[in-house]
Amino acid sequence: MSGHLYGGVNAAVLTPMRDDLGVDLDRLAARCRALLDEGCDGLAVLGTTGEANSLGIDERLALLDGLAERGVDAARLLPGTGTPSITDTVTLTRRAAALGCRGVLMLPPFFYKGPSEDGLFAWFSEVINRVGVGTAIYLYHFPQHSGVPFTPALIARLIRAFPGTVRGIKDSSGDYDFTGRIARAHGPDGFEVYCGDDTALHRLLGDGGAGCITAASNLTAPVAAAVYAARGGPDGAAAQARLTALRRAIGAVPPLIPAVRALVARRTGDPAWRTTRPPFLPLAPAEEAALYAAWDAASG
Amino acid sequence: MSGHLYGGVNAAVLTPMRDDLGVDLDRLAARCRALLDEGCDGLAVLGTTGEANSLGIDERLALLDGLAERGVDAARLLPGTGTPSITDTVTLTRRAAALGCRGVLMLPPFFYKGPSEDGLFAWFSEVINRVGVGTAIYLYHFPQHSGVPFTPALIARLIRAFPGTVRGIKDSSGDYDFTGRIARAHGPDGFEVYCGDDTALHRLLGDGGAGCITAASNLTAPVAAAVYAARGGPDGAAAQARLTALRRAIGAVPPLIPAVRALVARRTGDPAWRTTRPPFLPLAPAEEAALYAAWDAASG
Repeated sequence: MSGHLYGGVNAAVLTPMRDDLGVDLDRLAARCRALLDEGCDGLAVLGTTGEANSLGIDERLALLDGLAERGVDAARLLPGTGTPSITDTVTLTRRAAALGCRGVLMLPPFFYKGPSEDGLFAWFSEVINRVGVGTAIYLYHFPQHSGVPFTPALIARLIRAFPGTVRGIKDSSGDYDFTGRIARAHGPDGFEVYCGDDTALHRLLGDGGAGCITAASNLTAPVAAAVYAARGGPDGAAAQARLTALRRAIGAVPPLIPAVRALVARRTGDPAWRTTRPPFLPLAPAEEAALYAAWDAASG
Repeated sequence: MSGHLYGGVNAAVLTPMRDDLGVDLDRLAARCRALLDEGCDGLAVLGTTGEANSLGIDERLALLDGLAERGVDAARLLPGTGTPSITDTVTLTRRAAALGCRGVLMLPPFFYKGPSEDGLFAWFSEVINRVGVGTAIYLYHFPQHSGVPFTPALIARLIRAFPGTVRGIKDSSGDYDFTGRIARAHGPDGFEVYCGDDTALHRLLGDGGAGCITAASNLTAPVAAAVYAARGGPDGAAAQARLTALRRAIGAVPPLIPAVRALVARRTGDPAWRTTRPPFLPLAPAEEAALYAAWDAASG
């Protein structure tokens, strides 16, 4: 659908780390270009897969600056900027906007559990009022990690209060009842619903969703692009079956981030992709072997 | 017991906010002095009650600097420095140590849920190796908000790996089976166990614990000090009964932070204490009235 700023396939980009755990900006910029060449429509840097929450605020700012300095098109970037604090979230969002990003992906404040709906509304209102309308905010629903879910009522209230600014959602809950409900309710008004679950893409497009933002798209972008090209129509089913098989293979040896790293390391022939920040650790060799076997079986 | 760096009563100090939600450093420094005068042994600034996670990293650094500039004794401060990232946690911990704090209270990395024990051990090891041994690390166990519990096995492993540096724990779980187990296992070796639950203080002291670090101590320090003075002996029971009644009154109208703010605002005659950062909101007038009635009944 026209008007979707990030419609299509968006990779939740891995963040390459040096041996000292610092961010390798050159490797990241090269990888961003490669993902766009592979068919990604946009790049969700500094998301969960990018280990943004394992980076300091200054490191996140430096990452955004570093990509801009290296000529990665900011208009294709959808950076994660949500933190538990209004102030750090505003700092990151302003920087993204200043560099030319059209939108940001925003977690709710995720330390204090059980916040009231009024409290969450106040938090987002304060952030948006400080940033200024114009930068599109995509709500980031990932209750398994955030512990702070968005409710349909809060989403509707934010859309009403900030039309055109609260512009979409990434739903990583894996609960398609929720994803589909939000897409059917708000998609007709241009609200962009992205799934974080690759297996739901075809179905979501049929319900008026905008695309996907996923970890697997570091590996599966051409297949996901074929699903997207069908826009929920009958041609998408076969591509979705392939995408689903690949996604399941990636999940054969959890946790997800080290698994995606291992597969990218093998594909690129660059072992540096395995380096991750604690609390994640690289897969053990036997785990890698099992993962590679699962991937090869699914893609064969 | 001698050798406890923060033995006794530690207030989890509220952070006063201006109308623009900025930190009011003058008001905070004055409050810190008042709490020491009221009988607090130490001051856990930048904890959960202090809404540290609602402050940006730069604001937290400025708060520590601001207290030092205003002459608050850093040796009495136990600042919270845990964040989801190794880098920000190291930055905050180094600053606290440089200013003269003897220890810090450290949350585990709390965004990614379900980390492995090896991954958490690697995270703390990396932080401690970067900070350098010598600054005492107090583990901050608050699974209701962090979503990432410390296990007895991880605690034992960290103590073995970093003896004298991993020096204690604040247990805010409210699960006395856990608190008592850790105190009995490691207290005899000097490991300092503090409860975040005022109602458990007398019992914990009997089990060899070191004291408390609590929100209620913003209001109840003299009573908690009487419990501590008895060190778990029979004289402590009556004081504990008074402390328990006061703590239950504070909890009569949740959430806790706005409730403590309202009670401090009334006691000091300074309405500015009500100002909180979203996702918290101040109590409504009717809620305040109910809270004040509960407090008055308990303290009458």
